[in-house]
Amino acid sequence: MSQGMDSQRLIELGRELGQVFSTRAAEYDRTATFPVADFDDLREAGLLGVMVPERFGGLGADFLTYTKMLEQIGIGHAATGLTFNMHNIVTGGVAEMDLDAIPGSRGKAMKAFAEWLFDEAVNGKKLFASATTEPGIGAKYSQLQTTYERVDGGYELNGVKSFVSMAGFADYYVVAARSKEETSGPVPTLSFFAVPKEADGIEIEDVWDVLGMRATSSNTMYLRNVFVAKELLFLGSEGFGFFKLLREPHWQVGGYNGVYLGICTAIFEFMTDYLAKKGIAGTDRTAADDRVTQHQVGELDVELAAARALTYEAARLVTESPGSFEANTAIHRAKYIVGELAPRLGSMAIRICGGSTIAKRLPLERLYRDARCGGLMPAKSDDCLSYVGKAALGIDVSKAEESYW
Amino acid sequence: MSQGMDSQRLIELGRELGQVFSTRAAEYDRTATFPVADFDDLREAGLLGVMVPERFGGLGADFLTYTKMLEQIGIGHAATGLTFNMHNIVTGGVAEMDLDAIPGSRGKAMKAFAEWLFDEAVNGKKLFASATTEPGIGAKYSQLQTTYERVDGGYELNGVKSFVSMAGFADYYVVAARSKEETSGPVPTLSFFAVPKEADGIEIEDVWDVLGMRATSSNTMYLRNVFVAKELLFLGSEGFGFFKLLREPHWQVGGYNGVYLGICTAIFEFMTDYLAKKGIAGTDRTAADDRVTQHQVGELDVELAAARALTYEAARLVTESPGSFEANTAIHRAKYIVGELAPRLGSMAIRICGGSTIAKRLPLERLYRDARCGGLMPAKSDDCLSYVGKAALGIDVSKAEESYW
Amino acid sequence: MSQGMDSQRLIELGRELGQVFSTRAAEYDRTATFPVADFDDLREAGLLGVMVPERFGGLGADFLTYTKMLEQIGIGHAATGLTFNMHNIVTGGVAEMDLDAIPGSRGKAMKAFAEWLFDEAVNGKKLFASATTEPGIGAKYSQLQTTYERVDGGYELNGVKSFVSMAGFADYYVVAARSKEETSGPVPTLSFFAVPKEADGIEIEDVWDVLGMRATSSNTMYLRNVFVAKELLFLGSEGFGFFKLLREPHWQVGGYNGVYLGICTAIFEFMTDYLAKKGIAGTDRTAADDRVTQHQVGELDVELAAARALTYEAARLVTESPGSFEANTAIHRAKYIVGELAPRLGSMAIRICGGSTIAKRLPLERLYRDARCGGLMPAKSDDCLSYVGKAALGIDVSKAEESYW
Amino acid sequence: MSQGMDSQRLIELGRELGQVFSTRAAEYDRTATFPVADFDDLREAGLLGVMVPERFGGLGADFLTYTKMLEQIGIGHAATGLTFNMHNIVTGGVAEMDLDAIPGSRGKAMKAFAEWLFDEAVNGKKLFASATTEPGIGAKYSQLQTTYERVDGGYELNGVKSFVSMAGFADYYVVAARSKEETSGPVPTLSFFAVPKEADGIEIEDVWDVLGMRATSSNTMYLRNVFVAKELLFLGSEGFGFFKLLREPHWQVGGYNGVYLGICTAIFEFMTDYLAKKGIAGTDRTAADDRVTQHQVGELDVELAAARALTYEAARLVTESPGSFEANTAIHRAKYIVGELAPRLGSMAIRICGGSTIAKRLPLERLYRDARCGGLMPAKSDDCLSYVGKAALGIDVSKAEESYW
Ligand SMILES: Cc1cc2nc3c(=O)[nH]c(=O)nc-3n(C[C@H](O)[C@H](O)[C@H](O)COP(=O)(O)OP(=O)(O)OC[C@H]3O[C@@H](n4cnc5c(N)ncnc54)[C@H](O)[C@@H]3O)c2cc1C
Ligand SMILES: Cc1cc2nc3c(=O)[nH]c(=O)nc-3n(C[C@H](O)[C@H](O)[C@H](O)COP(=O)(O)OP(=O)(O)OC[C@H]3O[C@@H](n4cnc5c(N)ncnc54)[C@H](O)[C@@H]3O)c2cc1C
Ligand SMILES: Cc1cc2nc3c(=O)[nH]c(=O)nc-3n(C[C@H](O)[C@H](O)[C@H](O)COP(=O)(O)OP(=O)(O)OC[C@H]3O[C@@H](n4cnc5c(N)ncnc54)[C@H](O)[C@@H]3O)c2cc1C
Ligand SMILES: Cc1cc2nc3c(=O)[nH]c(=O)nc-3n(C[C@H](O)[C@H](O)[C@H](O)COP(=O)(O)OP(=O)(O)OC[C@H]3O[C@@H](n4cnc5c(N)ncnc54)[C@H](O)[C@@H]3O)c2cc1C
Repeated sequence: MSQGMDSQRLIELGRELGQVFSTRAAEYDRTATFPVADFDDLREAGLLGVMVPERFGGLGADFLTYTKMLEQIGIGHAATGLTFNMHNIVTGGVAEMDLDAIPGSRGKAMKAFAEWLFDEAVNGKKLFASATTEPGIGAKYSQLQTTYERVDGGYELNGVKSFVSMAGFADYYVVAARSKEETSGPVPTLSFFAVPKEADGIEIEDVWDVLGMRATSSNTMYLRNVFVAKELLFLGSEGFGFFKLLREPHWQVGGYNGVYLGICTAIFEFMTDYLAKKGIAGTDRTAADDRVTQHQVGELDVELAAARALTYEAARLVTESPGSFEANTAIHRAKYIVGELAPRLGSMAIRICGGSTIAKRLPLERLYRDARCGGLMPAKSDDCLSYVGKAALGIDVSKAEESYW
Repeated sequence: MSQGMDSQRLIELGRELGQVFSTRAAEYDRTATFPVADFDDLREAGLLGVMVPERFGGLGADFLTYTKMLEQIGIGHAATGLTFNMHNIVTGGVAEMDLDAIPGSRGKAMKAFAEWLFDEAVNGKKLFASATTEPGIGAKYSQLQTTYERVDGGYELNGVKSFVSMAGFADYYVVAARSKEETSGPVPTLSFFAVPKEADGIEIEDVWDVLGMRATSSNTMYLRNVFVAKELLFLGSEGFGFFKLLREPHWQVGGYNGVYLGICTAIFEFMTDYLAKKGIAGTDRTAADDRVTQHQVGELDVELAAARALTYEAARLVTESPGSFEANTAIHRAKYIVGELAPRLGSMAIRICGGSTIAKRLPLERLYRDARCGGLMPAKSDDCLSYVGKAALGIDVSKAEESYW
Repeated sequence: MSQGMDSQRLIELGRELGQVFSTRAAEYDRTATFPVADFDDLREAGLLGVMVPERFGGLGADFLTYTKMLEQIGIGHAATGLTFNMHNIVTGGVAEMDLDAIPGSRGKAMKAFAEWLFDEAVNGKKLFASATTEPGIGAKYSQLQTTYERVDGGYELNGVKSFVSMAGFADYYVVAARSKEETSGPVPTLSFFAVPKEADGIEIEDVWDVLGMRATSSNTMYLRNVFVAKELLFLGSEGFGFFKLLREPHWQVGGYNGVYLGICTAIFEFMTDYLAKKGIAGTDRTAADDRVTQHQVGELDVELAAARALTYEAARLVTESPGSFEANTAIHRAKYIVGELAPRLGSMAIRICGGSTIAKRLPLERLYRDARCGGLMPAKSDDCLSYVGKAALGIDVSKAEESYW
Repeated sequence: MSQGMDSQRLIELGRELGQVFSTRAAEYDRTATFPVADFDDLREAGLLGVMVPERFGGLGADFLTYTKMLEQIGIGHAATGLTFNMHNIVTGGVAEMDLDAIPGSRGKAMKAFAEWLFDEAVNGKKLFASATTEPGIGAKYSQLQTTYERVDGGYELNGVKSFVSMAGFADYYVVAARSKEETSGPVPTLSFFAVPKEADGIEIEDVWDVLGMRATSSNTMYLRNVFVAKELLFLGSEGFGFFKLLREPHWQVGGYNGVYLGICTAIFEFMTDYLAKKGIAGTDRTAADDRVTQHQVGELDVELAAARALTYEAARLVTESPGSFEANTAIHRAKYIVGELAPRLGSMAIRICGGSTIAKRLPLERLYRDARCGGLMPAKSDDCLSYVGKAALGIDVSKAEESYW
């Protein structure tokens, strides 16, 4: 990696930042405001280019290193980790493409876009958000209603997006939209656009008053006749998207695995520390000396170790062979196990640690709330299980009709 | 029951009130303020005397009726149900005693206290809180550090109580304290005092900023040289308490079972309603038509039915033979199953219903937070399991040394 | 109940017989032979008429009493309980019909059949088996391939039945068959026939070498041009069956709930007895004194209590309002919880009790094997969950197209 | 590895043998006889020396390779894998010692024993069994009652051993015994002896009629004044054993992890194959097309992947740093997850696949029975959880008083 940043150093950097972020987490959560200070730190550390290849000035992290770094950030402040990942979905997804593979003008346009994107991220220190989800539809790509149509010099977009993390704070929104023209196939022609924050016709509605991940500012965005210059068509190519998602779902599905693994870790570490210090009244022993507590902690430790092992294994497979059957299956396994372990761990930790830990002055109750969000993000927990089950039963999960998107 | 209130009517009244309370719940939760309006309604409906025997002017509810009524209130607003139960622990525990059983002056004092208590509740419409828990000790009776000593005309109390639900809003705090005099046995001499809200030396510290049950105002209370008149000694008798708790734990352990069953029910009903309405984008079907969803809902339905059956069975046994081995075991079973089902149901409901349900404009996220509190209240979930396991293994759970208190 | 047998006495009788049966269970299991001696005892005790109305000379048990009696038998020897239930499905299903409700010749035929059936059971001491399941089809009524056609004086049956419990030992097989004539509707015309054991064309193939319930002799039966006299057409009426099953599934689904609850109870009792006696080497304590063991036993106790409560509740609802939405839902809940608790309990009991308990000289390993069979019998565990889930979601489970049959 | 056997080849060899063994498994299980033919194959393949270092003529497998090879054998026939492992516990435990580390005569004696052992295994093709467990004591080392005392030219042993896998078939029994002389410490002086099969005073009692792992011949062995030559004192040194176990538990605890992982794999593969072929009657679809089935299989797939990941991770850590805190904790995690997943998988597979799969002509019912045995072998499932929990809570698990042995 460039700038003398090897994997170990990058993970370590994640840890250091995570520790700083953790001191701010409670306040951002309380006020449900975007962690601007955390992002200043990320920017300053050059991390907006973490996924950008080294030859484009980035840090060129691989997916495994990235996952471990994100875990460290997630331990400190999950909402920051989650939103930061939205940016890396954009850059990371492009970074892993072979830009020289496609010949002709399409290849050229793609390359031009990638170069622009990398430059904006690395040198412009610009932040990219991901605007896919729509009200009443979720992130189901095949049903999206936001449309685009060609106009002079570019495109015009119309629609509503919900859950747009970093809304109001990102510099660009990567908006998924369907062509207004009729399509024949079962799946619409989907294209993506890097819509600048200041584009006319964008309105952000503040609705983000929720259970957890309160600091992500995942608000609703209205697009009314928004003009987007043709250079901002994602990868310079229409109709791109749905099939890439089927073939290489790891960024959309598993990008944030590190974040929720971080939550799990934070909960587990809080719990073991707390129990080792919590005196059992009337004795000179601590809660850690209790046999039942040890047994329960043992069971949770095994579950956490399992979630970690599957998360790393998936990330390693993605690094080695992105888009392979093994990598895709593994990333869905990891998404599920981490996404559902998090709330279980949160619930059990409160149960085991006791009543005092529901206070807001301790981090556990926030972790319990944030933890419940993982399973809701695509691929949702039960979509993961269906995917993995189909794969095990020999059903071709790369077919559109077997897809949950 | 007096005033033409039979069981069915009382449960129905609970349902009606619960529906009213439910409209106020979100706001009380948001601001973490005590549900004053709900208690005005409870007072007006004569429910402060719900457990007071009819011959003392109360409604004379039995434990089963009470549990079902509380469930209905809990469906609407659990924090109100929980705090209301604190009051009924006090009146209900006294109501079920045979006041004529104890001869002599001790019996007379007991009777006098009971009459005063009932009068205050029914005619004075006074609200009683329960102040047992202490910081760093929990509700472990045998380790409580708050002391009392005899002084002229009464007693003087000193100590700190935490988690005092209704602190600042109850008219009396029933405070558990140990005698300052040395005791020889393994268990201290514990007595209870009905301390008037306005007594000198009481200070409430507002610390209640927590995950769930935010509207209970379960704050910290300092008692500094608080004088309590001798008439306010609970049941006119010192040293009362620990052994009653061992013999008849149902009020302390199972009083609020109805509340958490109410939370479970509210979550389940929200979930099934939501799913039946939630369209699956791109189809004319709803989420309720999905086979996996049906299967998952089926499993949760069975668990809820089990929790309900065990809660009612326990309450029925308490009604029929309070303090029996069967009733005591059943109440611990019910406490456990309801206390742990609630957070599991909350977590599963969010998982199944999807991302939109974490918004604060829907009740589910509050239910998810409130739900986690049940297992923390005595007997804590794992204390319940130990109790039940010992009972099944033939160990005498009525012995102080086997007790979790 | 006739003959001075009230509910309590019947349950007690079940207990007594169960204890006798338990002494023979290991040997019947080892050799996979039918428990002839147990059935001699059942016959002698007059129990072949347990479900037959008193006015027809039977004991007229209600469904709740029956369930509890069966539980007691199941504690002693589940295979006997299971096969005995097959007989009672036949008599019990008829017993609960209002024989005077249907006018005309159809009503007359029905009544005649019922009287014959009751007489055979009570006075003839004849045993009836249930032959529904077919290879490659299971018990899916709508897909059954065994056919019947009208011939002189009766019907001719052809087909193969698998899992025919008591094959070779019952006096009659109640065979489900479809009419050879074309039907227009989605569901075939299904009729039932009481085929005498000695009928020509019946061949039993001994294939019953299985994991558990080895003493049920659930063998394969071939029917080749089997003539059945028209008087043996079940209830004197063709086309009967499928819709009764939809409306009143309790016998087919929940008849054996008592058996599997009996297995659960037997496992639990074995476990607690064993642990209370099992010394912890190097100490004077027993396994029952261990905190982790107590906690684990506590959790299983709650689950067992839940399964029992739901089983009794379902049986009570069937007794009070057979075929009601509440009863039908409850019976599926009970079937699921009991069917899946049994193997879990068996597995946990071996885990907790330790290595010595896998020996065949102790009953636990047999219970572990028998336990796994409950969830396989209709309604299978997952069919139960789907049914219950649909019911909770407001889907009409009484419609043929929502049915798992 | 010597003889051109690299890791991959060894694992492949395990697979090939496993496939051969699988064809014999049902019969050995049915008759509960020792798989002599399988051991002939193992012997012939040179696998009795699999753990013997290459310089002593063995195959010098590392722990990870061994685990994966054993998994393959376990897929085919778990009882063979389990007993084969008993032999490798003996050779493998010695193989990993640094024989040159201990100076003087003690070091010399150790080396001489090791050389003898390796020679017997590789060239003599001798099979070693492990005789630790005692009736009423289990494998609790600190409480063993079998004694040895020094006599002319060697030692005399007395006691009873239970669960001696390969009893009657091994060439040597490695017997754990305590010194008859008093010891001062909390832990007795434990020594091990390689007792030849034909030694006078040994009697094998055939008691092995059990649930699962029926082909292991884990019978009871009586030792009555059995003389053992001093050269057969294990590693030439008394008092050896207990502390090695605390420091390096991987062989005793995790040797057979591969076997139970093999069972899990066999169950899972049977299940997915079966479902993909099982037609849904009345449709042209298979059970694999059902959404609920896919979802359930997905969940089990994740659990299996987790068990595999933790098993391999533990084995890798043992290979890299045997006896490290990380390796020891990991091996207990793996032992637990694999040991308890196996019976759960077996139970779920039968539930999902349906009634036909309980037949003995299919392997699933045997797998279900064998599967329950893993959690009973040291460290028992709950001992594993306690160990892991203590480790997570910062308690020193290498101390004798924290040990479950
Ligand atoms: C919603 C709600 C309402 C309640 N209402 C009432 C009420 O009205 N009246 C009442 O008396 N009680 C009330 N309680 C308190 C309840 O009864 C329990 O006592 C309470 O939940 C504390 O339980 P705990 O044992 O887990 O306590 P904890 O305080 O978690 O644990 C007690 C033990 O933990 C140790 N400990 C505590 N804090 C720390 C720390 N920071 N670090 C290390 N060790 C620590 C102590 O030494 C002690 O051994 C309420 C609780 C809840 C959740
Ligand atoms: C913390 C967080 C951050 C996220 N960040 C992003 C982001 O940056 N970009 C992005 O694109 N997405 C983001 N998402 C959204 C996420 O990707 C999912 O799309 C989202 O969770 C919605 O999932 P769902 O399918 O459960 O949707 P839901 O909205 O719950 O369900 C969609 C389906 O539900 C129906 N439905 C919705 N509401 C109702 C109702 N009230 N009544 C009946 N039916 C209803 C619809 O018809 C539709 O079929 C984020 C989500 C979370 C939790
Ligand atoms: C398939 C298999 C193969 C094995 N192979 C070997 C081997 O090769 N070598 C070897 O050394 N071990 C072997 N074992 C034994 C294993 O290592 C354990 O020691 C064994 O499972 C016993 O474990 P346990 O502690 O649960 O014993 P248990 O015998 O169940 O329990 C021991 C404890 O139970 C008490 N106890 C035992 N029976 C009773 C009773 N009837 N009533 C009351 N209390 C009782 C005792 O006092 C003692 O405290 C094998 C086990 C299995 C299942
Ligand atoms: C102890 C016991 C006693 C019973 N007693 C009776 C009784 O008295 N009377 C009675 O009628 N029934 C009885 N049954 C049968 C029971 O009612 C069920 O029908 C039975 O368990 C089969 O259920 P299943 O649907 O899982 O069948 P399965 O036979 O497992 O499944 C049926 C489906 O599986 C497919 N299938 C079957 N085998 C294979 C295969 N090898 N490969 C691929 N696909 C396959 C078929 O095409 C069909 O779709 C008994 C069952 C048990 C376990």
